[in-house]
Amino acid sequence: MNTTPTLPSVIKASRFIYQYMQASPLLSYQFLSDLVGADVWLKHENHNPTCAFKVRGGINCLSKMSDEHKNAGVYTASTGNHGQSIAFAARAFGVKATIYVPKGANQGKVDAMKSLGANVVSFGDDFDVARDGALQASIDNGGVFVGPTDEVLIEGVASYALEIMQDLPDVDVIIVPVGAGSGICGTSIVAKTINPKVKIIGVQSTQAPSQQLSWKKHELIEAQMQTIAEGMATRVPFSNTQKIMHDYVDDFLLVDDADIIKATKTLIETTHNLIEEASATTLAAALQIKNQLQGKKVVLVMTGGNISMQNLANLFGSM
Amino acid sequence: MNTTPTLPSVIKASRFIYQYMQASPLLSYQFLSDLVGADVWLKHENHNPTCAFKVRGGINCLSKMSDEHKNAGVYTASTGNHGQSIAFAARAFGVKATIYVPKGANQGKVDAMKSLGANVVSFGDDFDVARDGALQASIDNGGVFVGPTDEVLIEGVASYALEIMQDLPDVDVIIVPVGAGSGICGTSIVAKTINPKVKIIGVQSTQAPSQQLSWKKHELIEAQMQTIAEGMATRVPFSNTQKIMHDYVDDFLLVDDADIIKATKTLIETTHNLIEEASATTLAAALQIKNQLQGKKVVLVMTGGNISMQNLANLFGSM
Repeated sequence: MNTTPTLPSVIKASRFIYQYMQASPLLSYQFLSDLVGADVWLKHENHNPTCAFKVRGGINCLSKMSDEHKNAGVYTASTGNHGQSIAFAARAFGVKATIYVPKGANQGKVDAMKSLGANVVSFGDDFDVARDGALQASIDNGGVFVGPTDEVLIEGVASYALEIMQDLPDVDVIIVPVGAGSGICGTSIVAKTINPKVKIIGVQSTQAPSQQLSWKKHELIEAQMQTIAEGMATRVPFSNTQKIMHDYVDDFLLVDDADIIKATKTLIETTHNLIEEASATTLAAALQIKNQLQGKKVVLVMTGGNISMQNLANLFGSM
Repeated sequence: MNTTPTLPSVIKASRFIYQYMQASPLLSYQFLSDLVGADVWLKHENHNPTCAFKVRGGINCLSKMSDEHKNAGVYTASTGNHGQSIAFAARAFGVKATIYVPKGANQGKVDAMKSLGANVVSFGDDFDVARDGALQASIDNGGVFVGPTDEVLIEGVASYALEIMQDLPDVDVIIVPVGAGSGICGTSIVAKTINPKVKIIGVQSTQAPSQQLSWKKHELIEAQMQTIAEGMATRVPFSNTQKIMHDYVDDFLLVDDADIIKATKTLIETTHNLIEEASATTLAAALQIKNQLQGKKVVLVMTGGNISMQNLANLFGSM
């Protein structure tokens, strides 16, 4: 498929997804509500297999793939969570997966991909170079390239938004971390179609703002990429997710890495979940705009829990 | 209620429980399977509200309480997770809760109880002294004392075992950490009634073995209590859970605190879940008896995720 997902198509996709995983919990936390001055709920995508929302996209992708394509094997590139998603789904469907990761990728995520049976290739200095490598390898070997923002992935990950709207129909604001953009696109299509009044706010790091800058100016802009949140380390924006974000997203904030690190520590301490930095941008953003959120029902999407053990040590090592 | 729960009574109780939380996931992990040489699944009770299995018991308890008792308020004692369970359920039902905790209790657990609106009283040097204090206070103030192994709690927590048997009906072995014993009693009643061939194995720390010694000798034996796993820090055994364990439990192992600490680190690193030490005893036990587990389907019950931030720092601070 390469058409933009719709609410009906997401509902159909969710049937496939629940064959391999269950809905994730949406939990409220009094401490976080007090901190933000709003009714704060966390959507725990970190409770999924592979500890990230991406797995829903991988399952949907492999569910819809032809036997011919499955036999050819899949190729993709990833800083970690998308790769784990494809590796998880490929194993479930008995398909060979090759994942290109940039050098210096989060070792825990790389180990997890290998443990799921994927062939992992370390290639290039950042995600965008690794992506070019994976695309070339798929052409050279007659395999199927899966891009990180393919519509079939957006359609799959959108199923978490369906769960949010079912569990908390009167939600006012959903704050979503943005990497390649599949999560926020799926979220906004589903939430806005069900209730156009729901506000959808994207977040990136000030240290990797390409998607935010592109959204603001409505043109594709490359930018620096030095954030600690490797789940959002995108140097080059994606045109298909930019188009959907332009149509559906209400606001797009930047938060500084220093505030992301603080928010990560707060979330781990108060929720007793391992939370990776990309997820914590949502809390940092909520604190940045707390004046606008007073008394509202706010969902922060915990997109993943795969913080590196080194970063965890840096957070808690000085206690 | 003060009769031993049965499979039908647990099924009835689960209706109440799912009004306040959803079933927890049962996930397989390739790395852990390779490590143990078995098909290893984790029952993620750490994904529940309050991050522990106990919450199911608290919900069941308050669901069944008369209005008169609810108005009188509830009193209990806890090293942490049971107290959070009662605090969570009391808040959900609009009931006043007073929780006695031993001095030096895990601060994160104490903060969580307070954040749920409970009145927390620091009392005595260990759980058993705090329990006496809570009982006396309930008498002095005309409140309702909830003991940590009350049958209504066993009946509630047993709902997780129902989920295990539904998700993995051909499970061979379930390994359960034992504190006061409500978890293993609920698990064994449900699992053995559905399939008498399922092996139920309890675990305690060598540094706090009172329940294990009592089970072995079939008499109530007090023992030392110096384990790092405060969720299992019980000095005095409980007669009602001992009776059920005598009838249903197949084996009861002790693992050393040093091995518990190692297993905790392994579980956090490989699953990206915060796991508290009590939960990790199950992996330490599986490794101790790996010869007996080869090729079997093994469920390790992750009873809770509320590791103290200090212990987390000690685990990862030296990286």
